[in-house]
Amino acid sequence: MSDIDDLTSAILAGKYRALGKAISLVERDDPVAQRLLADLYAATGRARIIGVTGSPGSGKSTLVAAMAKHYRGQSKRVGIVAVDPTSPFTGGAILGDRIRMAELYTDRGVFIRSMATRGFLGGLARATNDVVDILDASGFDIILVETVGVGQDEIEVVRTVQTNLVVLVPGMGDDIQAIKAGIMEIGDIFVVNKADRPGADKTVTEIKMMMSLVEEHGEWVAPIVKTVASKREGIGELDTAMEQHYEYLTKSGELDRRNRERVRIRIETQLKKRFMDRLIGGAVTREQYDALLDDVMRKRSNPHDAAEEMLGRIRF
Amino acid sequence: MSDIDDLTSAILAGKYRALGKAISLVERDDPVAQRLLADLYAATGRARIIGVTGSPGSGKSTLVAAMAKHYRGQSKRVGIVAVDPTSPFTGGAILGDRIRMAELYTDRGVFIRSMATRGFLGGLARATNDVVDILDASGFDIILVETVGVGQDEIEVVRTVQTNLVVLVPGMGDDIQAIKAGIMEIGDIFVVNKADRPGADKTVTEIKMMMSLVEEHGEWVAPIVKTVASKREGIGELDTAMEQHYEYLTKSGELDRRNRERVRIRIETQLKKRFMDRLIGGAVTREQYDALLDDVMRKRSNPHDAAEEMLGRIRF
Repeated sequence: MSDIDDLTSAILAGKYRALGKAISLVERDDPVAQRLLADLYAATGRARIIGVTGSPGSGKSTLVAAMAKHYRGQSKRVGIVAVDPTSPFTGGAILGDRIRMAELYTDRGVFIRSMATRGFLGGLARATNDVVDILDASGFDIILVETVGVGQDEIEVVRTVQTNLVVLVPGMGDDIQAIKAGIMEIGDIFVVNKADRPGADKTVTEIKMMMSLVEEHGEWVAPIVKTVASKREGIGELDTAMEQHYEYLTKSGELDRRNRERVRIRIETQLKKRFMDRLIGGAVTREQYDALLDDVMRKRSNPHDAAEEMLGRIRF
Repeated sequence: MSDIDDLTSAILAGKYRALGKAISLVERDDPVAQRLLADLYAATGRARIIGVTGSPGSGKSTLVAAMAKHYRGQSKRVGIVAVDPTSPFTGGAILGDRIRMAELYTDRGVFIRSMATRGFLGGLARATNDVVDILDASGFDIILVETVGVGQDEIEVVRTVQTNLVVLVPGMGDDIQAIKAGIMEIGDIFVVNKADRPGADKTVTEIKMMMSLVEEHGEWVAPIVKTVASKREGIGELDTAMEQHYEYLTKSGELDRRNRERVRIRIETQLKKRFMDRLIGGAVTREQYDALLDDVMRKRSNPHDAAEEMLGRIRF
C-alpha cells in the first residue's frame, strides 16, 4: 500500500494527524494533494457546509465558537475553516477571543484550520474548497467557513457553501453600514449579533429595509436572528433557522443547483491550474516565456497577442 | 476604416464618448474589447497609476476627490476607477459624499468609472486593469484606483499599481484596527485621514508599531501623512510623498519589477480566459461538459479527474 493510500484511509477513518498532513499538502499545492482529493471525493457530500460572513468586529468568530459548542452538545463533529485573516482562529486579533476559543482547541470533536491569506494568491478559494472536501470526507457533520465576505475570492468561497449567515452588529454607524449593501445578496440568514447592545431593533429594521431593495432570489425570505454569541444566546433559534433553510434548499432543488455550481467552479479551477502548469515550462519553456514578457514590457507585443501566441502552441 | 480602428483613434485622441464605449465593451467581455486593448497597448505606460486603499468609512473617496482636484490645479488629466462597491463613486453610500463629488463629474479633465462588483465574478481584476490601460492610452496623466483592499482580487489590483496609499482614520477602535494588520504590507504610503479627529497621533504611533512588525521590502520606508480630505488639508504633503516614492521606484529598479509583474499577471489572466473560451464549447462540447458535471455530481468522477479528462483532449 502506498503512502497516499495510507493517508486516504487515515482521513476516511477521521484521524486528526492525517487531516493536518493532507491540509498541509493542499496549502503547499503538492501534486500528491490532487491525487488524494480525487480519491477522497466519493466520500464527500455528507457534511452540512455553513458560511459565516461578517466584518471584523461583528463577533463572527465568537458566533462560530458558540455554534460549534451547540453542535458539540448534539455530539456532532465540527470543522472550522477560517478564511478571514483577522479572525482569532487565524491567530490574529485579540487575546480575550483566543481564550474564549481555548476549549474548542482541546475538544477532539472539533477541528480548526486557518487559511492564512499569504501564500494563496490566486488560489485561496481553491484551497478552501479542498480543505472543506477533506473535512467532509473525513466525516465531519458540520463545517463552518468563516469569511469577511469582501473580494472576489471570498465571494467565490461563499458561493460554494450551502447556507450563508451574514453577521451584523448594532450601532456601527453610517460609515460601516455602507459596506452592508454589498453583502445583502449573499445572506441566506441574517444574524444581528451583540444584540444586547442598544440599537439592535433598529439594525433589524435596517436589514429589512435593505432586503426590500435587493432582488429576491426564489421563495426564500431570509430570516433575521438576534444573538449574543459571547453569552451563547440565540444559538438555538439560529439552528432552527438553519434547519428551515436546509429544508427549503432540498425541497426547492436549490441544494442541487448550489452543489452543481460548486462542482463547476471546482472543475474550472482545476482546469486553469493544470493548464498553466502544463503550458509554462512545458509547451512554452521558461526562457520563451521570459522573452515574451520582455517583448510586452518593451511594447513590441501586448498581453493579448502574447497570450494568443502561447495558445497557438497547443492543439485544441 | 473599421469601427474598431475608429474607436482606437478616438480613444488615443482622448474622446470621452469613445472611452465610455470601450469600457462598456470590456465590462461585457465583448471579443472586440480584446482586439481594441491589443491595439491600444503600445500607447500605455505613460500614466502615473496610484492605488487608494482603505475600509469603508476611511474617507478614501473624499481623499480621491481631493487628490483629483489637486492634480486638476496642475492641469493634469485625472482618471478615477472605483473598485470598492461601497464607494460614493460607485453610486453607493451617502448623499453628502455624492454632492462633494459633483464638481468632479462636470470637469472634462476628469473621468470617473465605477467597477460594480456584480457581473465581474472571477474577472474584476482583469476588467480593472483593462480600464486602467484604456485611460492610460487615452492620455490621462494620473489614474487613481480606489479599493477596499480585502480579498484576493483586490489584492491583485493593488499589486498592479505603481504606488499604493493605505488610508486609515483615528479612533476606529480595536475591532476595526484588527483589519489593518492585513493591509500593512501593501502600503507604500500611509495616510491618516480625518486627522482633525482626536487620536490622530496615536494612530500614527500604531502604524509605526505595526510597520516594525512586518518584513521590510527594499530601502523604502513608508511615510505617514496626515490629511483632512474634506478640507483638502495635507494633500500637498501627500503629493510630495508620492513624488519621492516615484523617484525611489525609478532609481531602485522597483518600477520595472512592478511593471513586469503587472505584465505577467495580465498575460496569465488572458491565457486562462482564452483557454477556457476555446476549451468549453470547442474541444469539449457544451453537452460533453454537462455530462462531465453530471458524472462529478453523482460521484462517478471527481473534479480532478474531470479536469484531467478535458485536458486530455488538447495536444500540448
